[in-house]
Order: sequence, then C-alpha cells, then structure tokens
Amino acid sequence: MSELEKSVIFPKGEPVYEHFTGTAYLEVLTKPDEVSSVLTGNVTFEPCTRNDCHVHELYQILLVTGGRGYYQEEGKPARRLEAGDIVKIPGGVKHWHGAARDEWFVHLVVIEGRTEWHEPVSDTDYEKVNSGDYHIP
Amino acid sequence: MSELEKSVIFPKGEPVYEHFTGTAYLEVLTKPDEVSSVLTGNVTFEPCTRNDCHVHELYQILLVTGGRGYYQEEGKPARRLEAGDIVKIPGGVKHWHGAARDEWFVHLVVIEGRTEWHEPVSDTDYEKVNSGDYHIP
Repeated sequence: MSELEKSVIFPKGEPVYEHFTGTAYLEVLTKPDEVSSVLTGNVTFEPCTRNDCHVHELYQILLVTGGRGYYQEEGKPARRLEAGDIVKIPGGVKHWHGAARDEWFVHLVVIEGRTEWHEPVSDTDYEKVNSGDYHIP
Repeated sequence: MSELEKSVIFPKGEPVYEHFTGTAYLEVLTKPDEVSSVLTGNVTFEPCTRNDCHVHELYQILLVTGGRGYYQEEGKPARRLEAGDIVKIPGGVKHWHGAARDEWFVHLVVIEGRTEWHEPVSDTDYEKVNSGDYHIP
C-alpha cells in the first residue's frame, strides 16, 4: 500500500479539488503542445475516491498501473479494474472511474479534447457498485 | 529483475524481430481505430537491446516504467532513463532508445503516424554510450 500511496511509478502530483468525491491527485506528464495535442497524466485515487460523471469531447485511454477500482458507463454494469487493465473511452460516452472503497487506485490517462462534467456518483450508487451490485440503472 | 522480465505491469507481449539489435518485446495496448488514432503499447528491452535509428511522422511519447536505458537524438548526448522518466519526441527527429548494457528496460509508448527506420546503432557507438561517453558525434 505504501507503494500505491507514492503512485507506483510516476509522481503523485497535486490534489485535484474539482469534479471528484474524495481525494485524488494529478500529475501531468506531457501537456498538449505543437508536438502533440495529447495530454498524458497520472491520476491517483485515495480509497473511496471517484470522479464525477463526465463526457470526453474526443476520447480517453486509461492504463491502470496499480490498486483496484471501477469504470462505469451510463446504463452499463461497472467494470472492476486492476493493474494491467486498459479502458478506451469514446467521445460522447458518459462515465465515471475511481478507487474501490478500501483500496488505492492509480491509472495513467491519454486524452485529447475537452471534458464536460456532470453530476457526482452518489454514495448510494457507489456503495452498490462496491457491494457487488455493479449495475446502476 | 524478475519483475522487469515480466514487464513490470503490462504484458511483455511478443518478440519484435525487425528494427532492433538484441531482443525486444511489444504488447499493443490500444490500436488506432475510429475512437482514437493513437497507438499505445508496452515495449520491453532485454539488456543490451536497442532499436535502430528511426524517425516518427508525427510524434512519440515514452513513459518509462522500469529498468534503465538510454534515449538519444542524432547529434546530441544520450539521456539516461529510469522509471518515471518521460520523453516527448517530435516528428522528424532521428533518434534511438534502448536498454543499458546490463539492465532490462521497459517503457510505454504513445504514438501517432508512421515510423521511418534507418541504420542500427553500431556496437561501437552503443558501447561508447554505456561507457559514459554519452555523445555520439
């Protein structure tokens, strides 16, 4: 667990105060610039932390490097994630991701375009996912 | 070392037979498709392995996850790399990367566009880099 608190390989970065329930950290690894319009970053979620529902303009790729967490698209069952798992999220798909209730969670992101933020994942819905009822209607 | 032989977090994938001196492995994590034109992959170099000099059409990003290696652009000193290091390579820049003589090396790649391959890094030049003479004229 101490390794995960250090964010495994890449720096943990700074706390993110908006669009998360709980405490998450972001280290931007490469910024969009004239070389590439891609942003790469490292996101670390403390146990019980998840981001608000959101939609990407273009796409997002998650490369999970440590811990355990979930990814869920609107109207679909949540997917349990651990180190080595990959998620490719098309633009326009409403979703959230975050740590399991009792575990840290760390993933890299590759992202292009803007992000549109929506409502938080309620404690009730998050609890359902963690209790094995992975499908939130 | 056994952890690095397993490629740290993501699968080691299949041996790559072309464009490398030594033995390298590639696991494609996400392929370019209608969602994103980016390819993400995991590249694992056995000790002493390096790729041939090459040029990317658009760009490449390296996220180093384990071991020790080098990155060198034509006419510049080699840069020593280890876990947590990041390299952003513009299109049109001739370069090579690979493991140190006695160490495994693992990095993720984010890449768009084609790759144009050139000559291998000679044993003499590779030895110079490993001996601390990091600048190959």
